[in-house]
Amino acid sequence: MNGFAAADSSQSQDRIYWGYKRFFRRTTLETSDYLKDDCLIMNCTVGVVRTHLEGPKQYSISVPPSDMGWGFKELLESETGCDIDFQVGDETFRSHKLILAARSPVFRAQFFGLVGDPNMDKVVVKDVDPLIFKAMLLFIYTDKLPDAHEITGSTSMCTSTNMVQHLLALSDLYNLDRLKLLCESKLCEELSAENVATTLALAEQHQCMQLKAICLKFAANPANLGGFLFPPLCLN
Amino acid sequence: MNGFAAADSSQSQDRIYWGYKRFFRRTTLETSDYLKDDCLIMNCTVGVVRTHLEGPKQYSISVPPSDMGWGFKELLESETGCDIDFQVGDETFRSHKLILAARSPVFRAQFFGLVGDPNMDKVVVKDVDPLIFKAMLLFIYTDKLPDAHEITGSTSMCTSTNMVQHLLALSDLYNLDRLKLLCESKLCEELSAENVATTLALAEQHQCMQLKAICLKFAANPANLGGFLFPPLCLN
Repeated sequence: MNGFAAADSSQSQDRIYWGYKRFFRRTTLETSDYLKDDCLIMNCTVGVVRTHLEGPKQYSISVPPSDMGWGFKELLESETGCDIDFQVGDETFRSHKLILAARSPVFRAQFFGLVGDPNMDKVVVKDVDPLIFKAMLLFIYTDKLPDAHEITGSTSMCTSTNMVQHLLALSDLYNLDRLKLLCESKLCEELSAENVATTLALAEQHQCMQLKAICLKFAANPANLGGFLFPPLCLN
Repeated sequence: MNGFAAADSSQSQDRIYWGYKRFFRRTTLETSDYLKDDCLIMNCTVGVVRTHLEGPKQYSISVPPSDMGWGFKELLESETGCDIDFQVGDETFRSHKLILAARSPVFRAQFFGLVGDPNMDKVVVKDVDPLIFKAMLLFIYTDKLPDAHEITGSTSMCTSTNMVQHLLALSDLYNLDRLKLLCESKLCEELSAENVATTLALAEQHQCMQLKAICLKFAANPANLGGFLFPPLCLN
């Protein structure tokens, strides 16, 4: 307590010291309620001034954001070094075990795990739409949620929301956590009176707690469902 | 011109319509200088109000940033599926042709190019420090500039600036454009009177135009070199 009291007693009213005015005199402290059983508990809130870090630098060279997916997507499109074929419905997708294993623990176990087969060169995938599998492959290689147009072409009837709903289920199957979150975020953005029931069921089935909570909040607000529950009577 | 004039004549002073006050009456327009050879040229400047897009959303699920490098780094560290060894000085680094090929056009030509050898399983790399090669490998797998401590350990004499200088040279050799820019940016941050000459020579040798220009600007400012050119005389 000596240094503390000394700092206090050296306080000069002629000069401004940050925080000095909030110091206690030793005598005031020793007679205060703050001292219990000769103990003082201090709770410090520290603020960090980041002005220096955020300020413009005298000289700087800007670096573009990560383009890691670009090179991998090129390998996928050129089929360079492919060593595994996926048969999905009527379509075959050529791919790379190593890249799939780096991105999904399920593929890692399948190709490089103790019970996996390292010489496997063909996998038949059942009950999955080829377009949804293609979308998942694109995510694996690029780390981005693919655009519905990129996958289906403009002539398809498959809507973006529908694609994302199926992609969420597939991401759960292959333990692609970030893809699952990207799908949840997209479905959350596109939530409407028409799709809230399907989205809620999907969230429930695939343990998407955030999405489920948002669906329930959305449905609980009469303003969100108003137009759906009470369609205008003047329609033909 | 009919619709135009009609909209104008329906203007009511009791209600506020955006832009209506700037309408011309048909008679004023027809006698004005704006009409030339019975033609009127209109120049429209359109402003887009993006408040809606930028405003907070009612419901949203946040998605973490890309973690693509995480899975690839794990493959490197666990040596899962490695198919190529690099002998660099006294050290051997196990790696994956496919990942190297996805990231560097030089490796792609070496392993999958027309004159490349697809069965190659060992490469001897001469005149490169093993630590710098390790740093490059880490960048290839993670897309991040590795920390000097991660590469050298705390006991090494190799400084961060020195490592980055050598890494820049290696990134140029393997056409790793983003690594080169990351190195340039780092060297720019660390520019000092002591290293500006070496950095300038390096920038010149590897065609780093931005870094070269910054070195020259730095050297041209007497305040930057002052301490270096005129060391204090009071030192022992």
